[in-house]
Amino acid sequence: MRLRLTPRDDSYYDMFADSANNLVTAARLLVELISDGADRAAITEKIRACEHTGDERTHAIMRRLNESTSPPLHREDIYQLASRLDDVMDAMEAAADLIGLYQLEELPKGIIDQVEVLERAAEVTAQAMPRLRSLKDLTNYWIEINQLENQADQIYRKLLAHLFGGSYDALTVLKLKDVIEELEAAADAFEHVANTVEGIAVKRS
Amino acid sequence: MRLRLTPRDDSYYDMFADSANNLVTAARLLVELISDGADRAAITEKIRACEHTGDERTHAIMRRLNESTSPPLHREDIYQLASRLDDVMDAMEAAADLIGLYQLEELPKGIIDQVEVLERAAEVTAQAMPRLRSLKDLTNYWIEINQLENQADQIYRKLLAHLFGGSYDALTVLKLKDVIEELEAAADAFEHVANTVEGIAVKRS
Amino acid sequence: MRLRLTPRDDSYYDMFADSANNLVTAARLLVELISDGADRAAITEKIRACEHTGDERTHAIMRRLNESTSPPLHREDIYQLASRLDDVMDAMEAAADLIGLYQLEELPKGIIDQVEVLERAAEVTAQAMPRLRSLKDLTNYWIEINQLENQADQIYRKLLAHLFGGSYDALTVLKLKDVIEELEAAADAFEHVANTVEGIAVKRS
Repeated sequence: MRLRLTPRDDSYYDMFADSANNLVTAARLLVELISDGADRAAITEKIRACEHTGDERTHAIMRRLNESTSPPLHREDIYQLASRLDDVMDAMEAAADLIGLYQLEELPKGIIDQVEVLERAAEVTAQAMPRLRSLKDLTNYWIEINQLENQADQIYRKLLAHLFGGSYDALTVLKLKDVIEELEAAADAFEHVANTVEGIAVKRS
Repeated sequence: MRLRLTPRDDSYYDMFADSANNLVTAARLLVELISDGADRAAITEKIRACEHTGDERTHAIMRRLNESTSPPLHREDIYQLASRLDDVMDAMEAAADLIGLYQLEELPKGIIDQVEVLERAAEVTAQAMPRLRSLKDLTNYWIEINQLENQADQIYRKLLAHLFGGSYDALTVLKLKDVIEELEAAADAFEHVANTVEGIAVKRS
Repeated sequence: MRLRLTPRDDSYYDMFADSANNLVTAARLLVELISDGADRAAITEKIRACEHTGDERTHAIMRRLNESTSPPLHREDIYQLASRLDDVMDAMEAAADLIGLYQLEELPKGIIDQVEVLERAAEVTAQAMPRLRSLKDLTNYWIEINQLENQADQIYRKLLAHLFGGSYDALTVLKLKDVIEELEAAADAFEHVANTVEGIAVKRS
């Protein structure tokens, strides 16, 4: 009988789940942020705190990777998945930041639809992370993320048409466009996370 | 005599060729779209249909990859090449879409040059795909795609200078800029396809 | 005693160092370019010459890679590192080009901060390249590049707030925004170089 002296380090799955749960928190804060009467400065602070937490988790994954002798997935896949989860957070934080930076008082109503899609994408992603262990039952995750990305795309294009519809001056269009583009980038970034997971599963198949 | 029981699945090469031919169709439709007197709504519908066909082909490649026991290239390379061909289509469709969304009646003349470069890049890419099998005679493909990308860059910059030359108001500049940026993104995406093919050849060398 | 007949080809390290030193030259030219009373046309020409030199070096690395029988790093890592060093140069050259193309006479003062961060990032990158050989002592490089990227981010956001602060008309905002976005893309591209180096080290650990 051969003993396994270097057990595969399963804590990665928990770390990815933590990162994804942190995205759920940030997405919910974004929903709050754009609600009427929100204390925007305070909520933006909380989103920034999420982003810092996310950075720390990403670095913890990288450090662990440097010390692991037998990580449960290819090193480059762990690296890429951690980076892409981080990209989602960066885009969400940038959107929140720009709303403050540009002192945008009123936001077009369609933005709430954009942000709710992000909230759902974050939840679906967080639910999928524990299934990385077995790489099973991930098909529904990819399908739903794909559908959400398509929805996000349509909402984004409607918002663009609205921005250019004549109600805003050019500088306001520029500012609002930056915000909705960051939110669209966050939706794309969720799809990149799903693509990375799909890529990992494909290699294993 | 040793029988080969699991024949390498060569259908991938045909699938990549199909995807690239679909890009040729879409690029030709773009040329039509911006011609004088074109029925833009009808042509945009056709471009959207190309995009759907492209999506289906990409998914067919992914499904095949999940079932293949010995794909003829690294799994991750097949995955990346399929994704990047898809990126080209997405950028071309987005450009067509924005023209409609922004209700842009007149387009600057330089756009025809941009789109003709895309048509040529699509043709060159489609001609190169069958040579993936042998990974031979691909140098001319890279060189021409590189030259086309440089041309696209120059055309893009001339268009930018034209947009800001004083003939357009700020909102029109913003709209036209979005369109020519998507077309420039399509030219870049063709280069990314070529880089992926180069990367595959480099690994094999 | 077994002779090593195919010595590992160490010239790659020198080639990467050359590419990075070329970025230092270009970054210093950018600092000159935006100084008062600079001969902008002449300096932009020099930056373009740097970009051509960079392209030639990138191609030399690719050619060498096609001929190497035992490169000292994974082929795809050499390929990616060369490409990402090239991306930095492309972004810096694009910024210089746009300044000329848009005939921007006066630039906001904050741009000097952006460019000085790039200069420092280029120096740090050039100093790190020789350490690729041993993959040791690279932690400080990643940490400093990360700090520089954070600094660049803050400078970029301050510049954005300044652009929208009411001193510029919409078309000028659009032009200046393009320039500072290319400079921000250069800072991000330095981080991508550092990530690639980190990824190489992680695989080896």
